[in-house]
Amino acid sequence: MKNVTLYIAASLDGFIARADGSIDWLPVPDAGGEDYGYGAFLETVDTLVMGRKTYEQVLALGPWPYADRRCVVFSGTRAGQQDERAEFIDCGIAACVRELREEAGDGVIWLVGGAEVIAGCLAGGVVDEIILTTVPVLLGEGVRLFPETTWMTRLRLAEVRSFADGLVQQRYEVVPVNVETRALAFA
Amino acid sequence: MKNVTLYIAASLDGFIARADGSIDWLPVPDAGGEDYGYGAFLETVDTLVMGRKTYEQVLALGPWPYADRRCVVFSGTRAGQQDERAEFIDCGIAACVRELREEAGDGVIWLVGGAEVIAGCLAGGVVDEIILTTVPVLLGEGVRLFPETTWMTRLRLAEVRSFADGLVQQRYEVVPVNVETRALAFA
Repeated sequence: MKNVTLYIAASLDGFIARADGSIDWLPVPDAGGEDYGYGAFLETVDTLVMGRKTYEQVLALGPWPYADRRCVVFSGTRAGQQDERAEFIDCGIAACVRELREEAGDGVIWLVGGAEVIAGCLAGGVVDEIILTTVPVLLGEGVRLFPETTWMTRLRLAEVRSFADGLVQQRYEVVPVNVETRALAFA
Repeated sequence: MKNVTLYIAASLDGFIARADGSIDWLPVPDAGGEDYGYGAFLETVDTLVMGRKTYEQVLALGPWPYADRRCVVFSGTRAGQQDERAEFIDCGIAACVRELREEAGDGVIWLVGGAEVIAGCLAGGVVDEIILTTVPVLLGEGVRLFPETTWMTRLRLAEVRSFADGLVQQRYEVVPVNVETRALAFA
């Protein structure tokens, strides 16, 4: 079975973007410099899952960086379309990601963002792993990484490492839980 | 000069307590077991600063654990009082903590909590250091560690370590900034 991994960077106070969506506060890796394990992670990725705004943000950054990988974009307005980069779908986020996870192969499904897609996957219990890279800054306001929920999610720390410029990368496995009885289990 | 240190535990999604203030989700150290560096940190502490509700929460846990240390409690209702454990004051949080910092000696002023006292100190630029211990859980809702602000605060990673039960402790120095011109500097 594939592994659904939320691989993302956030400020220490838990924001993934400024309120206007901008990510200008993220360090920009030098070519040939420290990539915070990104290249090695990308090697394991089979499928990317993201929201429409994230897709457009990636597009605006330059040439499409995910050739040869399946890319699924959640979009109400472009649902059913397909281009050379991505297929656009409109369905229950967690249910769709669960289906992707059960397809043949054992690669990683990279949950890229944004916040709504992340929230849908966490709520549906389809996130297997979180690789969180913390940037040494308090952003103060913006788009939050983790949604507010009425239940707890337990995690298992698998690895932590730090980089010379102060980034800290924590890898957690998400402890599986029956989403139907979740609120009860943690009451 | 003394060092003002925010030493605190939070969930990975940035909560320091449930909405009702409870901290039952925090690991309880065994006597003689792993203390996550707490004992060594407490040795360096000269003065404690906290809000009235935090004070009462500590009191309710059992015998007062901070004998022989100065304890300053912010309280509108008990201002001017003093008991064998603490002195109660009501003034601008950051201004008061700045004065404490400038008193003789070079110990640590431990900024214990709660959220309002932390927010006041961060806003006033009097936090020198953050030692954040992250518990491997997404709490979903509760009292947030970091306040929303309209400015960024830059940090320098000093140390990161992890513990067998999955706690991760990050130590950051807060990059000093002129609070008067802060919004401009990061605009």
